[in-house]
Amino acid sequence: MDLRSTIRWSRPILPAPTMPPATESIAITEVGPRDGLQNESAIIPTPLKVAFINLLSECGFPEIEVSSFVSRKWIPQLGDASEVFAQIKRRPGVIYSALVPNIQGMEAALKANVGKISLFTAASETFSQKNTNASIAQTLERFKPVIALAKSPQKSGTGVSPVHSRDARATVSLPVRAYISCAVACPYEGPTDPRKVREVASQLLDLGVDEIDLADTIGVAVPADIEKLYAALDGLLEPWHTTLHLHDTRGTALACATRAHQLGVRRFDSSAAGLGGCPYAPGAAGNVATEAIVWSFQKMGVQTGVDSSKLATAVRFIATALDRPLPGPMANVQV
Amino acid sequence: MDLRSTIRWSRPILPAPTMPPATESIAITEVGPRDGLQNESAIIPTPLKVAFINLLSECGFPEIEVSSFVSRKWIPQLGDASEVFAQIKRRPGVIYSALVPNIQGMEAALKANVGKISLFTAASETFSQKNTNASIAQTLERFKPVIALAKSPQKSGTGVSPVHSRDARATVSLPVRAYISCAVACPYEGPTDPRKVREVASQLLDLGVDEIDLADTIGVAVPADIEKLYAALDGLLEPWHTTLHLHDTRGTALACATRAHQLGVRRFDSSAAGLGGCPYAPGAAGNVATEAIVWSFQKMGVQTGVDSSKLATAVRFIATALDRPLPGPMANVQV
Repeated sequence: MDLRSTIRWSRPILPAPTMPPATESIAITEVGPRDGLQNESAIIPTPLKVAFINLLSECGFPEIEVSSFVSRKWIPQLGDASEVFAQIKRRPGVIYSALVPNIQGMEAALKANVGKISLFTAASETFSQKNTNASIAQTLERFKPVIALAKSPQKSGTGVSPVHSRDARATVSLPVRAYISCAVACPYEGPTDPRKVREVASQLLDLGVDEIDLADTIGVAVPADIEKLYAALDGLLEPWHTTLHLHDTRGTALACATRAHQLGVRRFDSSAAGLGGCPYAPGAAGNVATEAIVWSFQKMGVQTGVDSSKLATAVRFIATALDRPLPGPMANVQV
Repeated sequence: MDLRSTIRWSRPILPAPTMPPATESIAITEVGPRDGLQNESAIIPTPLKVAFINLLSECGFPEIEVSSFVSRKWIPQLGDASEVFAQIKRRPGVIYSALVPNIQGMEAALKANVGKISLFTAASETFSQKNTNASIAQTLERFKPVIALAKSPQKSGTGVSPVHSRDARATVSLPVRAYISCAVACPYEGPTDPRKVREVASQLLDLGVDEIDLADTIGVAVPADIEKLYAALDGLLEPWHTTLHLHDTRGTALACATRAHQLGVRRFDSSAAGLGGCPYAPGAAGNVATEAIVWSFQKMGVQTGVDSSKLATAVRFIATALDRPLPGPMANVQV
């Protein structure tokens, strides 16, 4: 798979080819600036975020999840999403994406020239209520106008990144990713029935999303859970049409990613330095570390397109800036 | 596989049954007290070690690697091996093993009533020289009198643990494990040719050792390395006759253990809390954490025989005693 092909987002990744992409490459979405930093308790200055994202831009990721257009009231840490988008140096070929909770967020995201939006629902009713103050059905209902706006023809200068609208006459639609949180387990309800994940995924596909991101939000998956999850999606969604979003609470994330790759998964979320653990919540752990994914897969001959030495620079930068032990196995390695 | 069967060490595990044991269980040797604590820079008081081992004894491990009879001059941290063996409360059915470098160490180990000895050589000449001041061939030569002594009939009261000599008339021989360090890579020579591992393993089998322990000493293995390693051993040694000793320097250890299990490996070394990282050596990481192995495999329906809550007690005990962040994913979890 040519990683660069992931920038042609006006063509949805669904419907599917019937064969998985070659095993020789995977695509990594770096989610450290969003899913990682949102868990830091101290507010991080905007210029520091911008510098971090600019370093990540050099690494070769096809996509970087930059921030979230959730209300500043709910996630103060990401309240500067518009400023961050305005200040980063965009590298051609890289998609700069953001979380969008509702139509207000979508409008702000369009103004900020996001390259892709991420919606979020869950496979657990309790989590959905606690996280979004809405049932799963209500979150899906909220998505409709957001997706409609994302898929309406955007003219050059009206908010779509130049990367996506070189031809001003072209109709360009923003790609839409949808997260399904608690795809493996819920902190309130316990293990998730994979059939619930399938049900929600099916509804999301009906709404016209381009990408389904399956999130093990609390990081409890073991490889057998990954097998069950994809078995439940059989016939609806091929593994290579999903993105897998793993957290490493119990050290099982890379084992899960490896098993997922065997099953055909080719797209993973991860965060540099394993960002995402909350320093004041004992036991909470971050996303699987990007350097662990990159290092392990590249050593096995699976290309990630990521330059390890540039990644190490970004990891060292954020580890130094946050000045606390980070969970990524290489965050404290002196190279 | 009945974990308790591992105590019947007077029958060597080799030669082999031709079929792997059932996939439903694995045996874990807890190596935290030896391979973990030997890397702590501050000398740990003997009573603290004894208390830690006593907590581990409650967990259900078939074997605990207690200490090393290497000269106090070389590893001061484990200079109290005899005292530790004298003071621990031995639980019937648990093998209390120790590293033995030479005939002097073997004599001390016999006096201390060890239940099993571990010899160590390497698949890298440079590492062997730096670690033992001997070539690989010289280490194997040194093993001969040690193995001869281990395999000579031991009478009750002459040093063999009561567990192994209830019948004073029985001839009881001490089981001998042999570590092959740098089975995947060497810090001096780089990647290890798996054929070298096979060559050393073959020589060890000729010497009459009971168990081959393949160690990824520096923790750089990815699952593909595990495949290559066992492919190279094909026809000489079945995966289920080896023990796999992983370090988690780059977060890949559990992924490797999972792949190894798929290939038929049923015996793993690990350390509670991921002990083994040197706090003053940036980048050095510990053994794969026992709680990660236990948690992941048990969740997949693979029995380890280990009681998770008792393990958590041992993990909390040592984490509190050492008072530093430990690499194990659950070392800082409040349960």
